[in-house]
Amino acid sequence: MHRFLLWAPKAKTVEVKVEGAKHALAPLPGGWWEASVNDAGPGSDYAYFLDEEDLALPDPRSPWQPYGVHGASRIPDHAAFRWTDDGWQAPALQDAVFYELHIGTFTPEGTFDAARERLGYLKELGVTHVELMPVASFPGKHGWGYDGVDLFAPHEPYGGPEALKRLVDACHAQGLAVVLDVVYNHLGPSGNYLGKFGPYFTSAHHTPWGDAVNLEDRGSHEVRRFFCDNARMWLGEYHFDGLRLDAVHAYLDRSAIRFMEQIASEAHALEAETGRHGLMIAESDLNDPRIVTPREENGYGMDAQWSDDFHHALVTVLTGDRSGYYADFGSMADLAKSLKEVFVYDGRFSPYRDRMHGRAVPGLPGWRFLGYAQNHDQVGNRAKGERLIHLTSAGRAKIAAALVLASPFVPMLFQGEEWGASSPFQYFTDHEDRELGRLVSEGRKKEFAAFGWSPEEIPDPQDEATFERSKLQWAERERPPHAELLQWHRDLIAFRRSMPELRNGNLSEVQVRFDEEAKWLVLQ
Amino acid sequence: MHRFLLWAPKAKTVEVKVEGAKHALAPLPGGWWEASVNDAGPGSDYAYFLDEEDLALPDPRSPWQPYGVHGASRIPDHAAFRWTDDGWQAPALQDAVFYELHIGTFTPEGTFDAARERLGYLKELGVTHVELMPVASFPGKHGWGYDGVDLFAPHEPYGGPEALKRLVDACHAQGLAVVLDVVYNHLGPSGNYLGKFGPYFTSAHHTPWGDAVNLEDRGSHEVRRFFCDNARMWLGEYHFDGLRLDAVHAYLDRSAIRFMEQIASEAHALEAETGRHGLMIAESDLNDPRIVTPREENGYGMDAQWSDDFHHALVTVLTGDRSGYYADFGSMADLAKSLKEVFVYDGRFSPYRDRMHGRAVPGLPGWRFLGYAQNHDQVGNRAKGERLIHLTSAGRAKIAAALVLASPFVPMLFQGEEWGASSPFQYFTDHEDRELGRLVSEGRKKEFAAFGWSPEEIPDPQDEATFERSKLQWAERERPPHAELLQWHRDLIAFRRSMPELRNGNLSEVQVRFDEEAKWLVLQ
Repeated sequence: MHRFLLWAPKAKTVEVKVEGAKHALAPLPGGWWEASVNDAGPGSDYAYFLDEEDLALPDPRSPWQPYGVHGASRIPDHAAFRWTDDGWQAPALQDAVFYELHIGTFTPEGTFDAARERLGYLKELGVTHVELMPVASFPGKHGWGYDGVDLFAPHEPYGGPEALKRLVDACHAQGLAVVLDVVYNHLGPSGNYLGKFGPYFTSAHHTPWGDAVNLEDRGSHEVRRFFCDNARMWLGEYHFDGLRLDAVHAYLDRSAIRFMEQIASEAHALEAETGRHGLMIAESDLNDPRIVTPREENGYGMDAQWSDDFHHALVTVLTGDRSGYYADFGSMADLAKSLKEVFVYDGRFSPYRDRMHGRAVPGLPGWRFLGYAQNHDQVGNRAKGERLIHLTSAGRAKIAAALVLASPFVPMLFQGEEWGASSPFQYFTDHEDRELGRLVSEGRKKEFAAFGWSPEEIPDPQDEATFERSKLQWAERERPPHAELLQWHRDLIAFRRSMPELRNGNLSEVQVRFDEEAKWLVLQ
Repeated sequence: MHRFLLWAPKAKTVEVKVEGAKHALAPLPGGWWEASVNDAGPGSDYAYFLDEEDLALPDPRSPWQPYGVHGASRIPDHAAFRWTDDGWQAPALQDAVFYELHIGTFTPEGTFDAARERLGYLKELGVTHVELMPVASFPGKHGWGYDGVDLFAPHEPYGGPEALKRLVDACHAQGLAVVLDVVYNHLGPSGNYLGKFGPYFTSAHHTPWGDAVNLEDRGSHEVRRFFCDNARMWLGEYHFDGLRLDAVHAYLDRSAIRFMEQIASEAHALEAETGRHGLMIAESDLNDPRIVTPREENGYGMDAQWSDDFHHALVTVLTGDRSGYYADFGSMADLAKSLKEVFVYDGRFSPYRDRMHGRAVPGLPGWRFLGYAQNHDQVGNRAKGERLIHLTSAGRAKIAAALVLASPFVPMLFQGEEWGASSPFQYFTDHEDRELGRLVSEGRKKEFAAFGWSPEEIPDPQDEATFERSKLQWAERERPPHAELLQWHRDLIAFRRSMPELRNGNLSEVQVRFDEEAKWLVLQ
């Protein structure tokens, strides 16, 4: 017996098809529908049908999509998994070193199980928190994951629900915390059937991805429930230690209780059940300290956010790159300011943005911000996906690592950064819809033409070779020059972990001296 | 000699025509243009020409539009006015009683000068703050004022710049403070030439009035300057004691320093120059206490906001009306809650809005909120513009007045409310563009058809009789039954002013007992 529950406020009829038989759902208050089906249970495939249309729809909250994003949903047996992480507690955020990885390219196999085999390496490297790029089901076999459409269903080509649990459990067994990247600001362009079920989107606001997610309009209470329940599922059912919320600046939300505040407080409230504090980390382009200000102080109460200003200030000084958004950075003074005050743009005019940007950080600890010299976006959104080491010298890459790992922020590395991986991290997709695939490929070329890159140099996202090329080459890490850089990172991480004063996040203790002309900077 | 300054970042050429002669403006950094013209000075008419087009454009910051919104601009002689209000200080917000009035219908003449003649009456009534509905130039002779397009130019049919100064000065001479309603969330549909000059609007967001004002996108620093300078002009040049910001919920702004915070802090900073604290009051439909929370506590630092929940709770109990947004109200419990906690919807589900709404007010004083039984919107947005007294008995109108004037909020009356005026306050326009006028009239009929009112009952906004009908009939105030109600209001205001404990705004001291069945409520 399984109880199907579905929110479909505009539907006139709802049916669920299980093992070839259709069952009518009965309406409940608030636009919900339910049916208890005797023949359904763990392992059953099912699909919904609305208003007697002959179109099988995946469950908006599908926990498993074994046939891809357009296929039937399946009921997993969550209770069957034997967790071995009783009493697990993640290291404190203050003491954390993050490691961002992408399941599809982290290992040759590109699966949760293969990643599990590499946890010993990460433990030995010294990182404390593994951050997985999105694993919710997205169209095709491989991709970055930001085109996810079945937000409750771990991507089947990665191994599906069970394998993901094995990975999280193994992380905890190694003493590693695991954070998951989740995308609540848009859904992917293919396989998104949410609009058929309810007002998940609103045409009142345009985003780079089309209509905005409905966070403030009619029905938004259920749309927010959808995302909040998703967060609770990853933290509860899958034992994740935290979530990284993609691009919160794309949330359009004037509600008195902001979506960000709601989801952070619901995630934190879950501690009463799980005994663990779920970290809530924002990717934000707003330079708004309210995001990581406690709720009692009228902030949104997120635990931390990524700090791009430090990244941009650091990379421009190291590479001399001034293209695109790097135009706003480039001086040692900016780098020094980012180390001491977090946001270089703290209410200043931004020439690149042609507007004022940001707000000063009022006495928050440095560990409310993640600091990095590279991440999937900063590498992968270059035309050819070059890592920092491909753009500058090994010596400068070492300087970058030293500054990141001695910074007052929570340091984060991107997979392979620690050994100066020769592989790029390029933008790859696997859209089955050929027209969509063509549009993505063309769009990529156009986007970079504006930056002065010639179209023929830009790898085709839909070409499988682009994906394969982006996979880490593990063997190289033991060879020169990679081995030396790897040891440099191990030593720096060990050094940071041995020095509590590096981790107290007290920005007023940070001292930076520099000479703009002579190009030196000392961080104390 | 006059120096013309204009922001027109996309223009290739800019000329100003003064007294028949065109003069080229020279580009300045940041998209600004300037020209010093010898033959121009106070009294000169002028217009701008962009990119050699043969289209005379009013100045976006025109200080005076003597020929209406499509005509030439004129330079006033601000320095010539002889102010007599040296050392003027407005009564404290805690002690305030507001009186909202509409220049066009407050007197038979409908001018600033005619309103000036009535200030003695207002003083005698006992109110402390006069709040003028918008006076910025709008299309046609009469209208509510929310279709303003020349935001720096007092409406010429009201008397223009000089007459407005005479009114403000006379208020201060009477000991009355004056607050002005300003509209920064949209411009009117006719005479809005701003888009020709720069990116004042953005298509990223839709509002009920079309493209949203650009408060966060490229060029928004100058758009914000435009509005902030407008606020500074009213408070500085025109000696207003405060501003009421129309519909701040329609601002679309994710900036770390919100427009609302910026304009409030700039207005408050002006105190260093003027010696007076300019009140910043929001009309907000967000039920978000951040708006009136001090900036040091991560609020936006507005002085006060209107509180519709108290209005709706009060009116539904008195009239039994449950149509439209009144569906969310109607119980004595709601009314009691609004008196003790301000927002009835403080994070609760709103059936009318079909979403969660609002947030609890955390320990703010009651005088951060204006309380009223009527205002221009609540009267005028009814199909026939009926006042409370037209919908219920004189006895109930007295109860409403007693609750408003004994409430922990800053009480506000709407012109004529104090004597139970027989005149309605209907929606009237005077669009010279006949097609636009027709659309407004038709739109009004459609809007109310949804509420069950029949089209033929709805007064035509474009009919001059609708405007005339909405004018106060001053003679009636001395006749029964009006005279008695007027005395009731005078007595209540005097009572409030004699009782400091009514004005301390301490919501925790408010005690309310009620019986839902017996329909009584006691406020202590």
